[in-house]
Amino acid sequence: MLTIRRLDQADAQMLIAGAREKARAIGVPMCIAITDESGQLIAFERMDGGKVTSTTIAIDKAFTAAAAKKATHEYGTASQPGNPTFGIHSAIGGRLMVVGGGLPVTVDGEVVGGIGLSSGTPAQDMECAQAGIDHFLGAR
Amino acid sequence: MLTIRRLDQADAQMLIAGAREKARAIGVPMCIAITDESGQLIAFERMDGGKVTSTTIAIDKAFTAAAAKKATHEYGTASQPGNPTFGIHSAIGGRLMVVGGGLPVTVDGEVVGGIGLSSGTPAQDMECAQAGIDHFLGAR
Amino acid sequence: MLTIRRLDQADAQMLIAGAREKARAIGVPMCIAITDESGQLIAFERMDGGKVTSTTIAIDKAFTAAAAKKATHEYGTASQPGNPTFGIHSAIGGRLMVVGGGLPVTVDGEVVGGIGLSSGTPAQDMECAQAGIDHFLGAR
Amino acid sequence: MLTIRRLDQADAQMLIAGAREKARAIGVPMCIAITDESGQLIAFERMDGGKVTSTTIAIDKAFTAAAAKKATHEYGTASQPGNPTFGIHSAIGGRLMVVGGGLPVTVDGEVVGGIGLSSGTPAQDMECAQAGIDHFLGAR
Repeated sequence: MLTIRRLDQADAQMLIAGAREKARAIGVPMCIAITDESGQLIAFERMDGGKVTSTTIAIDKAFTAAAAKKATHEYGTASQPGNPTFGIHSAIGGRLMVVGGGLPVTVDGEVVGGIGLSSGTPAQDMECAQAGIDHFLGAR
Repeated sequence: MLTIRRLDQADAQMLIAGAREKARAIGVPMCIAITDESGQLIAFERMDGGKVTSTTIAIDKAFTAAAAKKATHEYGTASQPGNPTFGIHSAIGGRLMVVGGGLPVTVDGEVVGGIGLSSGTPAQDMECAQAGIDHFLGAR
Repeated sequence: MLTIRRLDQADAQMLIAGAREKARAIGVPMCIAITDESGQLIAFERMDGGKVTSTTIAIDKAFTAAAAKKATHEYGTASQPGNPTFGIHSAIGGRLMVVGGGLPVTVDGEVVGGIGLSSGTPAQDMECAQAGIDHFLGAR
Repeated sequence: MLTIRRLDQADAQMLIAGAREKARAIGVPMCIAITDESGQLIAFERMDGGKVTSTTIAIDKAFTAAAAKKATHEYGTASQPGNPTFGIHSAIGGRLMVVGGGLPVTVDGEVVGGIGLSSGTPAQDMECAQAGIDHFLGAR
């Protein structure tokens, strides 16, 4: 039998709060998605002005990061032409995201969820995702 | 050019708050989805214990209610065998929900968004969706 | 070798014009889709106020009517529980529409395209689809 | 509550007219799609001779441009191998188009819709999309 630890809804709201605050600070309204450790959505917020396309992208970044236990930008590097993971970006009906902005949420060395941001540049998305994690871990 | 009114994120949180409170009162952890008037997701919460399958179902109920401007349980009646809308439930890749729990959010006679609940019985889902709307409209 | 006759763009606009006029007359803004004889979209119009969900439904009604050479309401009858076509409504990823509002466009006994309407009741959708065909045939 | 401006059907027909005229001038029959600001289809025309594959591509270009508020060719540059957005082209079930020919339609600094062209080279598609916008803006 396995015992799994995963984010609860209060954790998810902490992650969103940290990401939202950073998004406001840099002036980019974001789509923010939080999944549990299985990659299943537990919370989502499209800030006023966040892009419609980014809804699915944010959810899929969080899904990828949690369920593959890997930051999406790491896939971005690994899947460049010539690299052995090339082509993975269209896997799972295109849900496997290789663009930065999805981060696994790790507690005590264990992946307990994922956070995915979209609407800015990949660098902005990554910055806001990290801010969500920092806020969450800082409050524990 | 058309001018459209739609829910903002603060409105979405009011809708979720009302639905969540009712869900707690009846002891059924719910998935709660809010869309804008075009059926695009703006907020989602899976309460601790909410069903994984209900994530998509709640989102699609909110989508249907907003984008078709009709409560999903009305489709449920209209699409019973022998009725003229029979078979509509598999339209749009199965996203057209005919099970109760999706309600359009209407302000001044205009549909401005949708709310979708899932995890309980259809009657419970409908009760919580209505509680979300009541809370939202009561606070305006 | 086969020689195929199909609607051209001018024909499609005639079909839309007739359907639109009827939609205005009955006061229901509609989604109107025209396909060629293969079921491939050639023209589409969402009248101001037409439903977002009806975009796909109208296109799929026209697709079904043209490509299956059968009115969608005929499928509605044939696919009722107990009938041998029961279950066909979820075929082709849910694109096979069995709700009224899709009609094949027939010239000299040959199906040359399809018209699909959605946003009203099935009876209203069928009435407007037929008005499109009447207008098109009357102008030939 | 948010107040949104979006293209109406008359606007959509102006956009199509401008794009169609340019397509005729360069001798390339095009698929032309117009979406509202949320990326939802409001009008579509496949000119006689337009490609069947281009139906979906034109619709998805318009969707991407409107809903991501960005020209599809800008994604084309940003998503080249080695660039941080590499791999985005298969997002949203492959609907996120990174090939030129999709442009947001902007009025008073606000994205109010999208136009997507397909059947020619990306350069031809872009030229015709821009012609649609020029015609629309010139008539206002």
